Amino acid sequence: MGGEQVLDELVEALRRLPGVGAKSAQRMAYHLLQHDRQGAARLAQALERSALRLHHCARCHTFTEHDLCAICRDPGRDPRLLCVVETPADLAALERSNSYRGLYFVLMGRLSPLDGIGVHDIGVQPLLQRAADGTVAEVILATGFSAEGEATAHVLAEALRARGLKVTRLARGVPAGSDLEYVDLSTIAHALVDRR
Amino acid sequence: MGGEQVLDELVEALRRLPGVGAKSAQRMAYHLLQHDRQGAARLAQALERSALRLHHCARCHTFTEHDLCAICRDPGRDPRLLCVVETPADLAALERSNSYRGLYFVLMGRLSPLDGIGVHDIGVQPLLQRAADGTVAEVILATGFSAEGEATAHVLAEALRARGLKVTRLARGVPAGSDLEYVDLSTIAHALVDRR
Repeated sequence: MGGEQVLDELVEALRRLPGVGAKSAQRMAYHLLQHDRQGAARLAQALERSALRLHHCARCHTFTEHDLCAICRDPGRDPRLLCVVETPADLAALERSNSYRGLYFVLMGRLSPLDGIGVHDIGVQPLLQRAADGTVAEVILATGFSAEGEATAHVLAEALRARGLKVTRLARGVPAGSDLEYVDLSTIAHALVDRR
Repeated sequence: MGGEQVLDELVEALRRLPGVGAKSAQRMAYHLLQHDRQGAARLAQALERSALRLHHCARCHTFTEHDLCAICRDPGRDPRLLCVVETPADLAALERSNSYRGLYFVLMGRLSPLDGIGVHDIGVQPLLQRAADGTVAEVILATGFSAEGEATAHVLAEALRARGLKVTRLARGVPAGSDLEYVDLSTIAHALVDRR
């Protein structure tokens, strides 16, 4: 962009966001400069404040401004249930379903040997410690049903069961609102096996 | 997200970027917090610095840190040619083509009556003043070939010709590297009419 270093730096910084390529970054930069300088200031502040204040919840590892996150602090949640998810986004999805009243543990990742992410890179040891607090009666594995999510669930289930904990896995089945003819065969097979 | 206000504010601020929805904004926020705190700091700084230092070039209206942008300052550019584009991104595309050595004028928009953007909202008056500096011998209209870009070019051409200026338009034709069978009919028709 003709030697405008400040603008180039902004485009480069936007490009580091996940899912943003060179053209999108340029479009974002021009949009902020031309039409939304207030939005640019707000984003800068939000980024600084987040980096300063947000860290991991001491108990479940999701992001929080406090020692414990709002869910871990909530006395109305059932401490005997511990649901293991890959990311805070998965935690948010489960919360939106309004169908779970236990606590969470966020792995902040999943096993992915191809990317060099092994058992020690996700929070397996912290999870084993957390689950052995004497109150947790059931660990619900809610990692994804991708190959990596399944492998993660498998490894965690073995380690947790070896310590005498009850381990369950989210049910696989036909998505709500789906017509059977549009559901993939593997899902139908699982829904048949897990029928109730 | 369970009452984490700082995190919610970050997601909301990211969501204001063009092309970013609720899910992307959440993913970006988690990514920055979990994997790229340095990138978050860099983005915050780049946003603040840009908002502080970047403004419009006094002559061509693109973004610059200086009074005049690098192109307008360059004595090697031909001041008799003035190329009118919609956005700084279009200017950048023309520069990348390495085939133009004149100066630019950036409208920062285009006529779009449906969106309430009329002749006074794009820089028509400033363009007429700029083009009447006594040096400009030819104004090349390089607005897009969308309906709005064509309408903009039409209005500008009339106003510029009324002041005795020579006005040209970018050629329409078959894109480089295209097989004719995949080119739309309107483009082929224009390429025939404009044959040389």
